[in-house]
Amino acid sequence: MKLPKRTIQRLSRYRRLLYKYRYMSEPYIYSHDLARLLYLNPVQVRRDLMLIGSSGNHRKGYNVNELNDLIGETIDSLEVQKVGIVGAGRLGQAILNYLTEEETNLKVVAVFDIDSQKIGSKFCEIECHDISKVSQIVLEQNISIGIIAVPSEFATSIADILLNSGVEGILNFTNVHLDLPKSIYLKEFDIITTLEEMAYFVKNK
Amino acid sequence: MKLPKRTIQRLSRYRRLLYKYRYMSEPYIYSHDLARLLYLNPVQVRRDLMLIGSSGNHRKGYNVNELNDLIGETIDSLEVQKVGIVGAGRLGQAILNYLTEEETNLKVVAVFDIDSQKIGSKFCEIECHDISKVSQIVLEQNISIGIIAVPSEFATSIADILLNSGVEGILNFTNVHLDLPKSIYLKEFDIITTLEEMAYFVKNK
Repeated sequence: MKLPKRTIQRLSRYRRLLYKYRYMSEPYIYSHDLARLLYLNPVQVRRDLMLIGSSGNHRKGYNVNELNDLIGETIDSLEVQKVGIVGAGRLGQAILNYLTEEETNLKVVAVFDIDSQKIGSKFCEIECHDISKVSQIVLEQNISIGIIAVPSEFATSIADILLNSGVEGILNFTNVHLDLPKSIYLKEFDIITTLEEMAYFVKNK
Repeated sequence: MKLPKRTIQRLSRYRRLLYKYRYMSEPYIYSHDLARLLYLNPVQVRRDLMLIGSSGNHRKGYNVNELNDLIGETIDSLEVQKVGIVGAGRLGQAILNYLTEEETNLKVVAVFDIDSQKIGSKFCEIECHDISKVSQIVLEQNISIGIIAVPSEFATSIADILLNSGVEGILNFTNVHLDLPKSIYLKEFDIITTLEEMAYFVKNK
């Protein structure tokens, strides 16, 4: 069964919240608490959890560890999904740092840059390779998700390289809109456009 | 006239592309070139530009400088919109760097952090203040947009402070979903949730 995108997003958020309860002596949580902490509707929370086969206990709520495992079975791959970050500037490093701190089934296995000072050194224990090796390393390491955090003028060529190396998902942080085949799962986040849009609506309130 | 969100996003993208043409001797551009470079439909481009009162010249296309000014009048405020970044870690610095490099009518006027090593020093020539001064400086400097780039556990309290200081737009980069009044223009970008969603769909292809 393929779940809707919004459900997957919420399951991911449930899990991140539930991680915090794991070390409690009796980790149970009520759907209304889960809903309240995530600003969601309790009915929706119960419906989402029902969808993955968890109905909870009427008196005690949901067993946190069981729920965690169940969400994991639903949204994680059996194998870890490997991620490559192209661009080891401030943004690339921020993303890397964030991904290594959070518990997820995503593992950054390589970082790439053109700066010879960065190549060969490690960021958060992940080796930084020459950007010319993207294709080789994506293939060797079986990287399925590529993050583009390079200056805008290189976005299209990096996307092409990632695409041709067999990456299946791309997260693009540049302001260049990518036109990729539908078979690639693409997410884009353009900070400047978002801020200009915000500025326009703030001004016209 | 209040333009639709998508139109504003496209106008912002047109302008960033047009900036590159400013120093050419005869800066004219055809709508189909603009469309092609941004992977848009030429009919849509013409419709957008018509909406802001520019119909172009049939033979030469659009005068780039005139078009730039016209887009500016539409999407910029008369005054520069002031931006404050809360969190001067890698992500906050990456955003700051990006905003100071790109030409926009958004100006970062303050950065905030709790790290005493950062407080008082400058990033991209912008002073870093103690996070306890967010409220004071937002009021003094008339900051209208706040960017939250702090660890997740502080997201809600920072948002409350920004809100109470009169900020009108918030861009939230933490994985904590904010529940703010409708009067605040809120954009959220949660990197981990986005990647987990991507991993799920990549796996279930």
